[in-house]
Amino acid sequence: MTNYKKLLAATILSAMTTSAYAGSEIETLINMLHENGMVSDAQFGRLQAELKQNQIQATEKAAQVDKQLAEATKPSDVEIEVKGGVSLKTRDGKFTTKLGGRVQADAASYSGDPDIGNGTEIRRARLYLQGTMYNDWGYKLQYDFASTGANGKGIADAFITYNGFDDLQLKVGNFKDPFSLEQQTSSKFVLFTERSLAGAFAAGRHIGSMVSTKQKHWSLAGGVFGDSLTATNGNNHDQDEGWGLGARGTYAPINEKTKLVHLGVGLNYRDAGGANTARFKTQAETHIGGVNILDTGSISAVSDYTKVGFELASVVGPFSAQAEYITTSVNRNNATDLDFDGWYIQTGYFLTGESRNYKKGAFGGVKPKSNVGEGGIGAWELGLRYSTLDLIDADVDGGEADSVTLGLNWYPTPTLRFSANYVDVLEVKGGTYADEESRVFQLRSQWAF
Amino acid sequence: MTNYKKLLAATILSAMTTSAYAGSEIETLINMLHENGMVSDAQFGRLQAELKQNQIQATEKAAQVDKQLAEATKPSDVEIEVKGGVSLKTRDGKFTTKLGGRVQADAASYSGDPDIGNGTEIRRARLYLQGTMYNDWGYKLQYDFASTGANGKGIADAFITYNGFDDLQLKVGNFKDPFSLEQQTSSKFVLFTERSLAGAFAAGRHIGSMVSTKQKHWSLAGGVFGDSLTATNGNNHDQDEGWGLGARGTYAPINEKTKLVHLGVGLNYRDAGGANTARFKTQAETHIGGVNILDTGSISAVSDYTKVGFELASVVGPFSAQAEYITTSVNRNNATDLDFDGWYIQTGYFLTGESRNYKKGAFGGVKPKSNVGEGGIGAWELGLRYSTLDLIDADVDGGEADSVTLGLNWYPTPTLRFSANYVDVLEVKGGTYADEESRVFQLRSQWAF
Amino acid sequence: MTNYKKLLAATILSAMTTSAYAGSEIETLINMLHENGMVSDAQFGRLQAELKQNQIQATEKAAQVDKQLAEATKPSDVEIEVKGGVSLKTRDGKFTTKLGGRVQADAASYSGDPDIGNGTEIRRARLYLQGTMYNDWGYKLQYDFASTGANGKGIADAFITYNGFDDLQLKVGNFKDPFSLEQQTSSKFVLFTERSLAGAFAAGRHIGSMVSTKQKHWSLAGGVFGDSLTATNGNNHDQDEGWGLGARGTYAPINEKTKLVHLGVGLNYRDAGGANTARFKTQAETHIGGVNILDTGSISAVSDYTKVGFELASVVGPFSAQAEYITTSVNRNNATDLDFDGWYIQTGYFLTGESRNYKKGAFGGVKPKSNVGEGGIGAWELGLRYSTLDLIDADVDGGEADSVTLGLNWYPTPTLRFSANYVDVLEVKGGTYADEESRVFQLRSQWAF
Repeated sequence: MTNYKKLLAATILSAMTTSAYAGSEIETLINMLHENGMVSDAQFGRLQAELKQNQIQATEKAAQVDKQLAEATKPSDVEIEVKGGVSLKTRDGKFTTKLGGRVQADAASYSGDPDIGNGTEIRRARLYLQGTMYNDWGYKLQYDFASTGANGKGIADAFITYNGFDDLQLKVGNFKDPFSLEQQTSSKFVLFTERSLAGAFAAGRHIGSMVSTKQKHWSLAGGVFGDSLTATNGNNHDQDEGWGLGARGTYAPINEKTKLVHLGVGLNYRDAGGANTARFKTQAETHIGGVNILDTGSISAVSDYTKVGFELASVVGPFSAQAEYITTSVNRNNATDLDFDGWYIQTGYFLTGESRNYKKGAFGGVKPKSNVGEGGIGAWELGLRYSTLDLIDADVDGGEADSVTLGLNWYPTPTLRFSANYVDVLEVKGGTYADEESRVFQLRSQWAF
Repeated sequence: MTNYKKLLAATILSAMTTSAYAGSEIETLINMLHENGMVSDAQFGRLQAELKQNQIQATEKAAQVDKQLAEATKPSDVEIEVKGGVSLKTRDGKFTTKLGGRVQADAASYSGDPDIGNGTEIRRARLYLQGTMYNDWGYKLQYDFASTGANGKGIADAFITYNGFDDLQLKVGNFKDPFSLEQQTSSKFVLFTERSLAGAFAAGRHIGSMVSTKQKHWSLAGGVFGDSLTATNGNNHDQDEGWGLGARGTYAPINEKTKLVHLGVGLNYRDAGGANTARFKTQAETHIGGVNILDTGSISAVSDYTKVGFELASVVGPFSAQAEYITTSVNRNNATDLDFDGWYIQTGYFLTGESRNYKKGAFGGVKPKSNVGEGGIGAWELGLRYSTLDLIDADVDGGEADSVTLGLNWYPTPTLRFSANYVDVLEVKGGTYADEESRVFQLRSQWAF
Repeated sequence: MTNYKKLLAATILSAMTTSAYAGSEIETLINMLHENGMVSDAQFGRLQAELKQNQIQATEKAAQVDKQLAEATKPSDVEIEVKGGVSLKTRDGKFTTKLGGRVQADAASYSGDPDIGNGTEIRRARLYLQGTMYNDWGYKLQYDFASTGANGKGIADAFITYNGFDDLQLKVGNFKDPFSLEQQTSSKFVLFTERSLAGAFAAGRHIGSMVSTKQKHWSLAGGVFGDSLTATNGNNHDQDEGWGLGARGTYAPINEKTKLVHLGVGLNYRDAGGANTARFKTQAETHIGGVNILDTGSISAVSDYTKVGFELASVVGPFSAQAEYITTSVNRNNATDLDFDGWYIQTGYFLTGESRNYKKGAFGGVKPKSNVGEGGIGAWELGLRYSTLDLIDADVDGGEADSVTLGLNWYPTPTLRFSANYVDVLEVKGGTYADEESRVFQLRSQWAF
């Protein structure tokens, strides 16, 4: 019996007793009348007996009612929230389960050079099951039906966490390396439909172990990782898969509801494994086209490579700004080392006055001030980005390009987003598509929860 | 506090007060006895004070109990239905979520010509998550695990709907074009295990936008669509994907529970995109065999093609009938245009007296009069179909065939179906399998909800 | 209204009435005072009327409260359990639904010969939806996201059951043939990360029908099966898929909570279908490496093959032992018949005192005596296995090998498992890897519910 129920029971019992006893004044009256000689001793006896019996009976009944009421009003053991997805939580807080997902349906139209065909695609279609167990343990499985393939390719997250230490989380399984602010921010929540050109240096997801701490004003994470799910040990099964180390620290000296300054630094080392190759490439901030305007191709004789990234972000009311610089150094066995780098700066502005939502080292979802379907107009946000990537060094000519992206996001509800993006590739030097400048207009409709 | 709870609280309070006050008669009695001089003024004062104190105390207790009872008896915020799948609904109706799916396990045996190997397969194995959000928005993701492949091949439905306009629905994402009665009717609910030969002209699912209205006696839907999920912009990424327009109108002058007349017309235009090809083909109303008895092969130099379909359906008690005629005109760039067509007529009869269930332009599921597991025998239905398809025109010889199908469906419960189908291909003219007449015996077990 | 609610209602009513009537003593008192001439007839009349009215009013109020309380305390129609996965059950027991899954994340390091690359993988990543409908029917769909591929490859279970007969279950769809104790035991619950070398004779899953009975002390199952999901009728569609028959009987003369003797025998016949091939192979009790140390290759001209297996298992408190011998006879059309065989013996010991959990013919999950997250240390188990496989006969040289496996399992909670396995292949004779002895060190983290 919970404290709440005990209190309830006690109150009902006491109320019943009082009310049954309704009534001490009648006892007083009877006594007085007897004293005053208005009722005889015999009558007095009968009255007293009847009074006592009624009191006992009422008390018993009240106790019985109390017990049954307590049983009947026992709160349900599981709390449920339905908001697109479904969240369940046991009342003791020991277990939670959430079923959620996302769908991003895209259409893109290309102009300029190279010649890229227009088209549509489901960019992501995910379901996930996530929860906590026995207080201290967490689990997640998230699958992307838009990205199926051998070796578990579509598996996004598949991990266990242990949260039994104060402020420290252990994680084992498949998940994102801790690197880059725009990579740590979910694709549901990034400002544009696709991440920047510097996303060519994304660290991606690997099977590994990580320890992290997330505080209000800073976070720190470090881990050791194997290879990505689709990696194998080669045709002859004799190559070791790659492995890596990753760490990221963030510091947010100002972190209020509508005001943020974020600084971050990330480090990512990858041993290339037995394959001894590395490749860096990017499309023109689009995904449907399939044309990598910048691409080093498969670089051979690679022993390892290290990425270093610096992050800066700020929120002031409806205004947000974000920038990253990432440099990658590739060590080769019998050739010059290579250095590539890229960066972007972007800014967003909510016409409807909302603020970007920041949580422990990454941006989260937008909560419109008023929802469409509840009499409101949702949240409207403008975005502008400049990004650049240089994949040319020594004998490797992956090309170099700049691009500008203009975006409009409409969030009718916290679970929906419609985006229109216009990407203009300003200048491509070197690589396969030298001097070909592509323009993309892209639409996305998204539900996510 | 809801009205219901207010009422409850008020009643309890008033009951408690009444019962505590049990009791105005004692006040009356005391007053009388005082008037009559039976109790002294001092005694009367004591009695009155005690009475008043008890009344106050009882009222306070009752109010307290009322508050706590109201809290304890607060109805749950989420309504749940478990019927194979799980449906959740917030009590305010703003949010719903449903998790459901279907499995169809088939076995087929072939005789006649051509020589087709017997076998088994999971025809469909789907899960879906579907719901509404913030009153006016809907979403769905449905995946078919029996039909996986690159580019999100197994994704059946992945869309957002907006239902905030009276009687008008907007839809964006991946879903079926509005075309053909047997295509609009779910595979869970069609009369036979496979659709007719005329299903060669199915419009399929594409990423697009649609506006529709569904009334009791008529429906209208029209949309613009991109290509199917598996379509790409070619090996060189320079081909536009195809796109299309689709519209369908239905009219049901009679639409009662066991009586229906349905008329429909559909129009589907497809631009062939940069690939400039089209292909129409069908198996012998089976899926395991993998032999397309009719097949135009890939027709080249196609600019676009247009399908027109006419629908007719009727229900009279346990009897149902349905027919469609579909013609397809293919425009080619440097060659004669092509015309293909096909049609079918089918009839069903419930031995157990149920009626086909019609809802706003398509047939739905069968609810047996009595369920197996609840003392009943389920619903039993016989079906007979004649269908024909002509894929021969000008230089294209895809063949022509007729077939007759005999079917038996047993629905032990609304969520289960066992089917036996016998397909007899009567006559094949032209094409690869000219004069080869195949016979198929097929069994299916299905759960769906 | 349930009996429980009727009882509750009656009790509240009676309590209310009693308490309203608080009170018969006041009636008695009034009568006495009237008899004694202390109140006048008029006063007596007034008092009686007031008393009566109050009694009626109190009774009415009590009835009203009773009704509303009964409504408010109506138990919810669906019971929910959240323990990682989610189980729902209607209160009438007619319907249940469970959503669950498992993730196994592995890393392996190889030494010895042949040269096998180290690596990581998600071994299994499954979700399932399972339940009962209309009392007598059951369904399941389970998919493995780590094992996707054409023809529904990742579909593990996809079936319907009928449980309306006493002690007899019918099953139709895709599921495991009834064969071999270590195959019937879920991969979540087997003692080591991978099954034994004799697992080369696993019967696997097929589409089929099975009838089974499971009693406390014995079980019997028999079925007829088509081919596996990925099997097709060949490139020319003219080959029949394979089919088979399977039966298994188990007997557990002792089956108590911590004490078990299990005997079993299995029989599995497979017609090779139109492909006329069979193949038996195994890795070194690992899965990441991808090297089949024993492998018959594709044996041609096979008409059918029959597997016979014998099982023995025992539990005595924390100690468990298990052994199987399986022999396979292959009938070939124009060549000598072939005989292969393998066996293993394994033993496990719970350092923390738990017992292996046995249920109707297979081992189930471990419930630690104390859970990590609830102040405990979980369950710790040591395991040792010897296994051997001989795939050499007549003209087929698939090799022969022995191996020893040492394992440590840690189950922090019933839903989690961390395993470390060391496999030492002792001796390989014949086959591609003759005299190459491989050693594997493997780690697994698993959540499952």
